[in-house]
Amino acid sequence: MKPIVSIIMGSTSDLPVMEKAAKQLNDMQVPFEMNALSAHRTPSEVEQFAREAEGRGLKVIIAAAGMAAALPGVIAANTTLPVIGVPIKGLLDGLDAMLSIIQMPPGIPVATVGVNAAQNAGILAVEMLALSDAAIRERLATFKKGLSEKIVKANAELAEVKYEYKV
Amino acid sequence: MKPIVSIIMGSTSDLPVMEKAAKQLNDMQVPFEMNALSAHRTPSEVEQFAREAEGRGLKVIIAAAGMAAALPGVIAANTTLPVIGVPIKGLLDGLDAMLSIIQMPPGIPVATVGVNAAQNAGILAVEMLALSDAAIRERLATFKKGLSEKIVKANAELAEVKYEYKV
Amino acid sequence: MKPIVSIIMGSTSDLPVMEKAAKQLNDMQVPFEMNALSAHRTPSEVEQFAREAEGRGLKVIIAAAGMAAALPGVIAANTTLPVIGVPIKGLLDGLDAMLSIIQMPPGIPVATVGVNAAQNAGILAVEMLALSDAAIRERLATFKKGLSEKIVKANAELAEVKYEYKV
Amino acid sequence: MKPIVSIIMGSTSDLPVMEKAAKQLNDMQVPFEMNALSAHRTPSEVEQFAREAEGRGLKVIIAAAGMAAALPGVIAANTTLPVIGVPIKGLLDGLDAMLSIIQMPPGIPVATVGVNAAQNAGILAVEMLALSDAAIRERLATFKKGLSEKIVKANAELAEVKYEYKV
Amino acid sequence: MKPIVSIIMGSTSDLPVMEKAAKQLNDMQVPFEMNALSAHRTPSEVEQFAREAEGRGLKVIIAAAGMAAALPGVIAANTTLPVIGVPIKGLLDGLDAMLSIIQMPPGIPVATVGVNAAQNAGILAVEMLALSDAAIRERLATFKKGLSEKIVKANAELAEVKYEYKV
Amino acid sequence: MKPIVSIIMGSTSDLPVMEKAAKQLNDMQVPFEMNALSAHRTPSEVEQFAREAEGRGLKVIIAAAGMAAALPGVIAANTTLPVIGVPIKGLLDGLDAMLSIIQMPPGIPVATVGVNAAQNAGILAVEMLALSDAAIRERLATFKKGLSEKIVKANAELAEVKYEYKV
Amino acid sequence: MKPIVSIIMGSTSDLPVMEKAAKQLNDMQVPFEMNALSAHRTPSEVEQFAREAEGRGLKVIIAAAGMAAALPGVIAANTTLPVIGVPIKGLLDGLDAMLSIIQMPPGIPVATVGVNAAQNAGILAVEMLALSDAAIRERLATFKKGLSEKIVKANAELAEVKYEYKV
Amino acid sequence: MKPIVSIIMGSTSDLPVMEKAAKQLNDMQVPFEMNALSAHRTPSEVEQFAREAEGRGLKVIIAAAGMAAALPGVIAANTTLPVIGVPIKGLLDGLDAMLSIIQMPPGIPVATVGVNAAQNAGILAVEMLALSDAAIRERLATFKKGLSEKIVKANAELAEVKYEYKV
Repeated sequence: MKPIVSIIMGSTSDLPVMEKAAKQLNDMQVPFEMNALSAHRTPSEVEQFAREAEGRGLKVIIAAAGMAAALPGVIAANTTLPVIGVPIKGLLDGLDAMLSIIQMPPGIPVATVGVNAAQNAGILAVEMLALSDAAIRERLATFKKGLSEKIVKANAELAEVKYEYKV
Repeated sequence: MKPIVSIIMGSTSDLPVMEKAAKQLNDMQVPFEMNALSAHRTPSEVEQFAREAEGRGLKVIIAAAGMAAALPGVIAANTTLPVIGVPIKGLLDGLDAMLSIIQMPPGIPVATVGVNAAQNAGILAVEMLALSDAAIRERLATFKKGLSEKIVKANAELAEVKYEYKV
Repeated sequence: MKPIVSIIMGSTSDLPVMEKAAKQLNDMQVPFEMNALSAHRTPSEVEQFAREAEGRGLKVIIAAAGMAAALPGVIAANTTLPVIGVPIKGLLDGLDAMLSIIQMPPGIPVATVGVNAAQNAGILAVEMLALSDAAIRERLATFKKGLSEKIVKANAELAEVKYEYKV
Repeated sequence: MKPIVSIIMGSTSDLPVMEKAAKQLNDMQVPFEMNALSAHRTPSEVEQFAREAEGRGLKVIIAAAGMAAALPGVIAANTTLPVIGVPIKGLLDGLDAMLSIIQMPPGIPVATVGVNAAQNAGILAVEMLALSDAAIRERLATFKKGLSEKIVKANAELAEVKYEYKV
Repeated sequence: MKPIVSIIMGSTSDLPVMEKAAKQLNDMQVPFEMNALSAHRTPSEVEQFAREAEGRGLKVIIAAAGMAAALPGVIAANTTLPVIGVPIKGLLDGLDAMLSIIQMPPGIPVATVGVNAAQNAGILAVEMLALSDAAIRERLATFKKGLSEKIVKANAELAEVKYEYKV
Repeated sequence: MKPIVSIIMGSTSDLPVMEKAAKQLNDMQVPFEMNALSAHRTPSEVEQFAREAEGRGLKVIIAAAGMAAALPGVIAANTTLPVIGVPIKGLLDGLDAMLSIIQMPPGIPVATVGVNAAQNAGILAVEMLALSDAAIRERLATFKKGLSEKIVKANAELAEVKYEYKV
Repeated sequence: MKPIVSIIMGSTSDLPVMEKAAKQLNDMQVPFEMNALSAHRTPSEVEQFAREAEGRGLKVIIAAAGMAAALPGVIAANTTLPVIGVPIKGLLDGLDAMLSIIQMPPGIPVATVGVNAAQNAGILAVEMLALSDAAIRERLATFKKGLSEKIVKANAELAEVKYEYKV
Repeated sequence: MKPIVSIIMGSTSDLPVMEKAAKQLNDMQVPFEMNALSAHRTPSEVEQFAREAEGRGLKVIIAAAGMAAALPGVIAANTTLPVIGVPIKGLLDGLDAMLSIIQMPPGIPVATVGVNAAQNAGILAVEMLALSDAAIRERLATFKKGLSEKIVKANAELAEVKYEYKV
């Protein structure tokens, strides 16, 4: 089993957030790997990783970073695979990381999701893979249908809230 | 020739920005369509468009919107295709649109690019398509290699700048 | 007793905030209902709810949402009833939700109140209903007169604060 | 003909923005008045205006203000009529006015619309009036149906955009 | 003893912040009063208070408010006494209150201090009073000289910090 | 005639803004001076100016600065006279200067007015002087009464605006 | 042993942050001193310190400050030594301090690092010293090589994370 | 003559801003070079440049970038030379670039200056070089003394401003 998605983070302190991406890929039966890399601590390894990614059979890269979050953009600079960026909230409210990831120059996009939105990064990766994989597409469709269940459950709970003038 | 990418905008006032996405797809020989839709003016049409998108053979949707930019998210709610969101700058600096597009709830991601970054939206769409299309992948690789030319040209221009102590 | 106000939220995690709207309506003897709906998880149900709202006798809709808060705007797109939007504070400080709700395009307003300001949403709904209901108008007038009591009580407490040079 | 909506602004420099509210009310055949008042220059007149508003037959008040925009809130403090606030963009980007209008204390809501969104203020007023006026309700329904025309026209224009790979 | 400074707040929840202003005035032997008033809950009382302030012998008014902080500006609108505004931090970070207080229209200034900076509001009031009161001026000079003591004490503590290469 | 107010700015590029403070003082017949000083270019002169200010008979200091606006605070550090700070708008929107001026540490307040609000700085200075000068107090009262004239004029202009349904 | 770096802070409450700068200098065997100074509480001492710094053999100054953080800029105004500014997070998110430090006027730069980034301030000082000190340069090179170790350790931890589809 | 400072930018569109750094170095007789490099378009060249910088005799690197400004940080990751970052203002107000440059992770500082503050970047480089070069140190001292001339000239201009009550 070779990984087709790689989840990259700069520190294991990001793991509690990024596990949601891992769990999402796992639930969708998408083979993935998890690596630590840093655009600022291990720049050569980042470049090497990105340049070899396609050759190794990877299809999508999810990169999480906080603060001056250069990692997703630097990976994107060294590959033609789609790169999904996850801004991690830190001392500031995460807008520093969001802007550092999303405001890429023309030619090198990063598909950015919300602050700490690792689950959405996982789903976005699955959506891309589903374009050419019918089995994944079916699992994704099932997952999307299940999203409304949370609302069904919420309605059941709201039905229990009692007020004299609540109908 | 059936379109595989759909570029959606809420108003032709967004056309000067979004033409860069069109041009990028055209240069990459990716068949595409352009439509006007609005999550607030034509909500039923948006839902219908999104629900039929996959069946019509579309693979990626690029949706541009400004202000309370609900369009990309509402499309994403009604399809399992990847949706790319382009925040359009308006009276405020575009952060209103960026946050309205990127801060999606768990389960329904939008792949957001920078403010007015329509060209990057086009390239990101191409990157997704290239995962399963060798011809597009090759054009994309050629394009990415060409990105450094702008720097070569800039260096030539900088060589012309003269100062006594400039070496 | 048919509800004339509907309180909508996307998750029961918003209930601790939105109960203040419910309590306010209840205190004013305004029949209301509470529902869970999501512009992104149950888009069809949102559209159906909004389209049927007027026919079911609803007069005002209060919709709470956080992050990329599309719910109030999408409801407003499908009804001519006034829609009151409540931005819910989340990982960011609530400005993402406020801008996502308030910055609506021309033609489809959402009456937006402050971050987590569910009580004010309830009062605003009552003010609208009071335009054509004398009994509600009277209760509202009584309520507004009572607002100054908090200040009377605060003055009593401040009178207890002792300093040598405090008169 | 007695006015049922009052449009208030602090300066005729706000008139180019606020005329859109006036035009909207006029198109809907809603009798209205326009007044200049300032929470800081004519505080007594503001209080008097607000206290007499209901007695004079007014039903909705639209108040525009920029900077430290106290006007809508101070009017709301002195009436039980619904007050719609329009933040006007000035030296800063309008967020100062938006926050000054929307972040009202519990008990005294202001129905706030987007920056410079005077047309939406007009429509919101009409939506409130339509709750108890069938003629206005019908005009409003017609207006809302017409909103999609802008999209139809935009689609026609987009059909004229030509690219080799545009379908 | 008649008060010459009045400290106004909208709620006793602001008391833990505003006590620093009271303590500062008390330390400077400046007779003062503390009152609760609200531009939105008790607008008439605010106007009456402000109009009578000078006649009652008050010289400076300190007004604290959070959120859409209209109180200092509305007081300033009704008096020619200098008004000092203290933005109180709330659900947002206090910038909403700061902008609501400081961005006053031409003609009606509010002397604004930092977020929760009640002590500075007290000192600023004393500085104004010192212009025409030699005794207060002397106490103020003594106070200002004492400010450097905190630095002397900090240096003593820093001297205790030990590192091999710390000199 | 000795000056009792000093207007300080760091550059004559601030003069178009700060002339409004000068004009206001002049209209109120308050003797004043205008000086250029910079906390960063002429730090010794700033300190000397501030230390000698009271002895020279100055009563209030108005200091304008943009960007990292240290000038008002550094002056305040060297005098017990009240210092009024005017944030000047520059490349950023003026919030950098506002925060640099207003967020002073405990003990050294700066009375901050809005972005570019030089006229209000002048009026605030006059309000402080009026505490102990009956002639200035009277001129100030006259000025404040005149503020409502702008509203009277605006109402006259609004009366000229014609719509079929405008009453 | 004479200090060549001086770490300045306005309060020992900044010590838990600034100790990281001290530790970094100590690890690099750079003689340093720590002082408390305040641009607002001890302005003369700041000026004296800065003017004498070069003569005392200091080479780099690290200055930390929060809120209206004038200290680094005022030091820079009185010396030609490089000054490194560290914005300290306070009631606001530290952007007030960052802007107060970084937005210096032309001619008087402050080398600003991130919010609370005292360790980076220490390293930046070392980088400057290493330009003319081979021993420090070598220690710096060793330190920089060690930065990747954190990533090696993180990869080891990630290898322990188990999922069925994790490769 | 070998360059000891390198000015790097990503596009010649930054040249009008960055020429101020060049002019400053030239005036100080510091040999420098100017290069175009991009962390996203030419990542390998950036890494190569940074790794070879010290060996080529460079002492300080000035790197300008806008938007998701990764360039200064990526250079800093590959050298032990001090790197000065200049945030360039773009579609947003430059805060995106400032945060992308300044919020570096522990271990890899970038000495950041204000938005578009290229002249200050030049001076900061000179300050670092002056630590070990007496001739540059003297030129720098002369330059710093000249900074007050702008204030002298401003005072002369202010002396020409005439008001009846201006002393």
